[in-house]
Amino acid sequence: MTSTAPPGTSKVSIEFRPHDKVTRVPPGMTIFNAANWIGLPIDSTCGAKGTCGKCKVRILRGHNGATAADRRIFTEEELADGWRLSCRSEAQEDVVCEVPRLMGNPKAALMGFDRHVILNANVHKIPLTLTPPSLEDQRSDFSRLRDALAPEGFEVEASLTTLRQLPVVLRKGQWQVTAVIVGHELVSVEAGDTSGRAFGLAFDIGTTTVVGMLLDLNSGAPVAVRSTLNGQAVHGADVISRISHTMMNDDGLSQLNEVILRTLNGLIAQLLHEGGVAPHEVYEVVTAGNATMQHLFLGADPEAIGLEPFIPVVEDMVQASAQEVGLEIQPQAQIHCLPYLGAYVGADLVAGLLATGLAQNEGVRLLVDVGTNGEIILGSAERTVATAAPAGPAFEGAQIQDGMRASEGAIEAVTINLDGIELQVIGDVPPIGLCGSGLLDAVAQLRLCGLMLPSGRFVTASDAKELVTSDLARRIITDDEGRRAFVLAWAEESGGGKSIVLTQRDVRELQFAKGSIAGGIDVVMQELGVESEHLVEIFLAGSFGSYINPQSARIIGLVPPVPVERIKAVGNAAGEGAKIALLSFRERQVARSLPEIVEYHELSGRGDFNDSFLAVLQFPELETLGLGNGTAVAQG
Amino acid sequence: MTSTAPPGTSKVSIEFRPHDKVTRVPPGMTIFNAANWIGLPIDSTCGAKGTCGKCKVRILRGHNGATAADRRIFTEEELADGWRLSCRSEAQEDVVCEVPRLMGNPKAALMGFDRHVILNANVHKIPLTLTPPSLEDQRSDFSRLRDALAPEGFEVEASLTTLRQLPVVLRKGQWQVTAVIVGHELVSVEAGDTSGRAFGLAFDIGTTTVVGMLLDLNSGAPVAVRSTLNGQAVHGADVISRISHTMMNDDGLSQLNEVILRTLNGLIAQLLHEGGVAPHEVYEVVTAGNATMQHLFLGADPEAIGLEPFIPVVEDMVQASAQEVGLEIQPQAQIHCLPYLGAYVGADLVAGLLATGLAQNEGVRLLVDVGTNGEIILGSAERTVATAAPAGPAFEGAQIQDGMRASEGAIEAVTINLDGIELQVIGDVPPIGLCGSGLLDAVAQLRLCGLMLPSGRFVTASDAKELVTSDLARRIITDDEGRRAFVLAWAEESGGGKSIVLTQRDVRELQFAKGSIAGGIDVVMQELGVESEHLVEIFLAGSFGSYINPQSARIIGLVPPVPVERIKAVGNAAGEGAKIALLSFRERQVARSLPEIVEYHELSGRGDFNDSFLAVLQFPELETLGLGNGTAVAQG
Repeated sequence: MTSTAPPGTSKVSIEFRPHDKVTRVPPGMTIFNAANWIGLPIDSTCGAKGTCGKCKVRILRGHNGATAADRRIFTEEELADGWRLSCRSEAQEDVVCEVPRLMGNPKAALMGFDRHVILNANVHKIPLTLTPPSLEDQRSDFSRLRDALAPEGFEVEASLTTLRQLPVVLRKGQWQVTAVIVGHELVSVEAGDTSGRAFGLAFDIGTTTVVGMLLDLNSGAPVAVRSTLNGQAVHGADVISRISHTMMNDDGLSQLNEVILRTLNGLIAQLLHEGGVAPHEVYEVVTAGNATMQHLFLGADPEAIGLEPFIPVVEDMVQASAQEVGLEIQPQAQIHCLPYLGAYVGADLVAGLLATGLAQNEGVRLLVDVGTNGEIILGSAERTVATAAPAGPAFEGAQIQDGMRASEGAIEAVTINLDGIELQVIGDVPPIGLCGSGLLDAVAQLRLCGLMLPSGRFVTASDAKELVTSDLARRIITDDEGRRAFVLAWAEESGGGKSIVLTQRDVRELQFAKGSIAGGIDVVMQELGVESEHLVEIFLAGSFGSYINPQSARIIGLVPPVPVERIKAVGNAAGEGAKIALLSFRERQVARSLPEIVEYHELSGRGDFNDSFLAVLQFPELETLGLGNGTAVAQG
Repeated sequence: MTSTAPPGTSKVSIEFRPHDKVTRVPPGMTIFNAANWIGLPIDSTCGAKGTCGKCKVRILRGHNGATAADRRIFTEEELADGWRLSCRSEAQEDVVCEVPRLMGNPKAALMGFDRHVILNANVHKIPLTLTPPSLEDQRSDFSRLRDALAPEGFEVEASLTTLRQLPVVLRKGQWQVTAVIVGHELVSVEAGDTSGRAFGLAFDIGTTTVVGMLLDLNSGAPVAVRSTLNGQAVHGADVISRISHTMMNDDGLSQLNEVILRTLNGLIAQLLHEGGVAPHEVYEVVTAGNATMQHLFLGADPEAIGLEPFIPVVEDMVQASAQEVGLEIQPQAQIHCLPYLGAYVGADLVAGLLATGLAQNEGVRLLVDVGTNGEIILGSAERTVATAAPAGPAFEGAQIQDGMRASEGAIEAVTINLDGIELQVIGDVPPIGLCGSGLLDAVAQLRLCGLMLPSGRFVTASDAKELVTSDLARRIITDDEGRRAFVLAWAEESGGGKSIVLTQRDVRELQFAKGSIAGGIDVVMQELGVESEHLVEIFLAGSFGSYINPQSARIIGLVPPVPVERIKAVGNAAGEGAKIALLSFRERQVARSLPEIVEYHELSGRGDFNDSFLAVLQFPELETLGLGNGTAVAQG
């Protein structure tokens, strides 16, 4: 997470035969995880604990010392032949290994952004017929169960809560029971054969909106999806005001913790009702959210995230039980909060990396989550860097004269052409203000038609008349102090009874916001030595990113000048990533290793960021974007 | 635990140089644990997790594949030289290894029954000065702490409860903190340097009495010791009536669980007050108790222990947090309930094995815990077997005409000689009844003076006159139906206004009780092929065992006929063993492996037990004990 992270140069290569796939990973990564990294299926049922013996590979070249687990699983002959458990075998030098063909095809699905994901849930339900105890066989209930699970490849541990259930359930089920195993933990035992029913939840815990998905872990199919407002909104719209609330009020932290639990438990009740699923049938949960949201969810103090130098409690994946956390499902269900790359590049971005495959694929890609903070990740399987740029609230419509959030009455898209100006308004009602995407569009369209100069200044009213139709030109107005503005809607067209105007100051606000993000992008591109033309794709993520017109983002210079078809809105990438991590243990392992692999660069107080920021405050010349000379409308 | 356990023949030998000590252990035991087994000190601070790198040994002969942990700790050259972590290295064949000399002498103490125990608590308090975070070093609070602990040899995990404390404590301590590590878990972080204060609790949870010891984990010194009655006594005097209570009442289990927690928390409050220790300074607890007591303590249903085939929930050591269990100390403190050898050979006996070293020493020894159930363990480091024999309530004074528990007014010892009869009464008051040890003494003394025949029958009144003084002879009385009895105290000597009498029927009850235990001892001696003369020592344990007169036990044939000086009362062996397991992680590892090593034999329905039982119902001939011909008093 620190900027002193080792550069991605000292990697080792692992070649998998007969697939002939090669990957380069940091030394010390297991061969199993390296295979996960490139989506190569190696069998495993024990959650990479070295017990099921299914993840075997044969080391053909490179270090191959046998571990205790290897010696338990393999014969002397097999060991001498190079057979090893890939989940225990750490690559310390270049390795060539052979992977046995899988019996049958692994179940896979297209998820996230065109990703082929192998489904392998971390939850295993194993129906068992136990030998009843007798005077000749007085093993304890737990030993009996554990011994019956061993031949199935499971070596389980049980918490006190689970042990307490055993005597009653085993006898109620008359020794026919189903063991529920998550990772290597026995989380529950159910009477009879209930192996057909196993469910999990994926949450995107956004500052504004919380999305919950109930998934069938056997099939990978979604059972129900719902979203709701984060109940914490009454305590402030953004993360900083939520953190302030915990600092200003003695019980602020427990208050916000209770509120988000109420929100999540409400959503859970709806999802379970809709899906006809009982609470105890939900065995695993994955959450993605920014660091502040995940801290508040876990009841951990987020204060240090809000103050320089911006420190979270933990960056790794946090695991806890539903009981500890306070979710109303199976008490021993495991909750996995995806890890962070930095205090301001949160688990939502880690989920975004899973959804896009950015850090696992060849070809350099850029992922930008645009909000009050711009989160930026650039890279490929070779090397990935991340940063966060403080953008201010302009993209959310705040500090903009007629700005508003993206709700009913907000202008969300603007088109300016020969026929005049066309507004797209949320809810199809007369407009009452301008939200972030509308702001971007307005400025981009004004640049296109020549009414705004690269400096961000409006042309004079008289110049406007030379450039565009008189209907458009008269929308350039000047106030008493000589400051220009552009009328998006006249008073009589608006829903608020007064005209909706884009002021010179609004444009400056947008310039600062986009300059910060573009400056951050510039820093990471320089760090990787990447030019715009190298970028294979640009992903716009986050609730705001999904609504941005890619062309407008390009015209105002928010993103590098790549052909517009390479810029893609990826919707709720955080939710998709959480879902992938829930349904695929392999992908969750990838997420877990991301904080170690992605280099985080802090921009605060960095000289080159300030330079970049100043350099990109201006809007790009349209010629550099292949869009004519800025008089498109007039000449059209 | 089953009688089909492998016989102790397939062991491997491990030779430690330069100590030239050799031990034979079951294959698969780590070299570290094998050293613990014989009390040989090997350094370790990580709780045998393969992380501290201190437990290194050099394998000179035998299997020596390197594990992943070895490769992390040692250089290629050291690996080639045979250096391995002894805590990771499992002995699968005979091994010869070299143990480096310890830097300084390990702290050790005499504990239990003449045992030299190496003190090494599982609790480590590590004072740390952390580098404060900065924009150049944005590691999370937990990473910062974990990174600072790594050079100290600790690789820690933290629960959510501990993570929640971090941001506040680190900043309150201004980055000077003390990490509290139990095993490999970070259970707490405290502001400042608090490493001087670390405490633990050892409990012997008896059916009747609970003993608690507060210990200073740094010095091994006892801080306070207290005992109290088990609050469950109102729900029945023995384990069977406690189990019945849980079966007959819907909330019986939670009721008994709450009662024992109240008892323990009351004891804890007293101990902490007396020692001037705060609840949060207690980081670890070890309990010993019979299976029913430990089940009720953990809130696990004991019903299956009470019914054939007598099955506990788990026989292994159970680990849980104080919070889960409900003890009012550091919430994340670890509670370790010692394991069982069988449903009726509980953790109190495992603790007894630690206190006596029976299963770790050369020379065959016998440990007998005498109560309503007689628990019997026989063996040595070579092989150890255990069983339980149902003795009935005679030893507790129940079903004896004038029987009573060992409380004020109970005759606890009896001497018969030329001067007549001498009674020792609890509380030095006139006697009101006869408790178990008094019953044993009375019968033994009557055998010695010739008033009782080996068959258990009293001599006739006329024969009595031939044998003893007239004062003694007239104490043999006969009721209307011709049944004889012996008057221990005449009505005018007693505290209850009526005479205290030992009836022929009382003697039969005792014969059945001692016959059951002696029969059990016979079975295990036959199992091991051991004769009385081979027995180095006999330990009498349990609250009752400690009060038995060894000579009397010998005279009535409760124990084999060894010279009386080899029979020893070991007092509260369970409490001593719990203390040893608390203060010495090595010894706790020994306790943990006992259920696998000690062979448990169930007596129910066993033909040879019934034969033995019938054979030992009689009392031994005095000649066989070197005690003359049974007319000692008359001839004295």
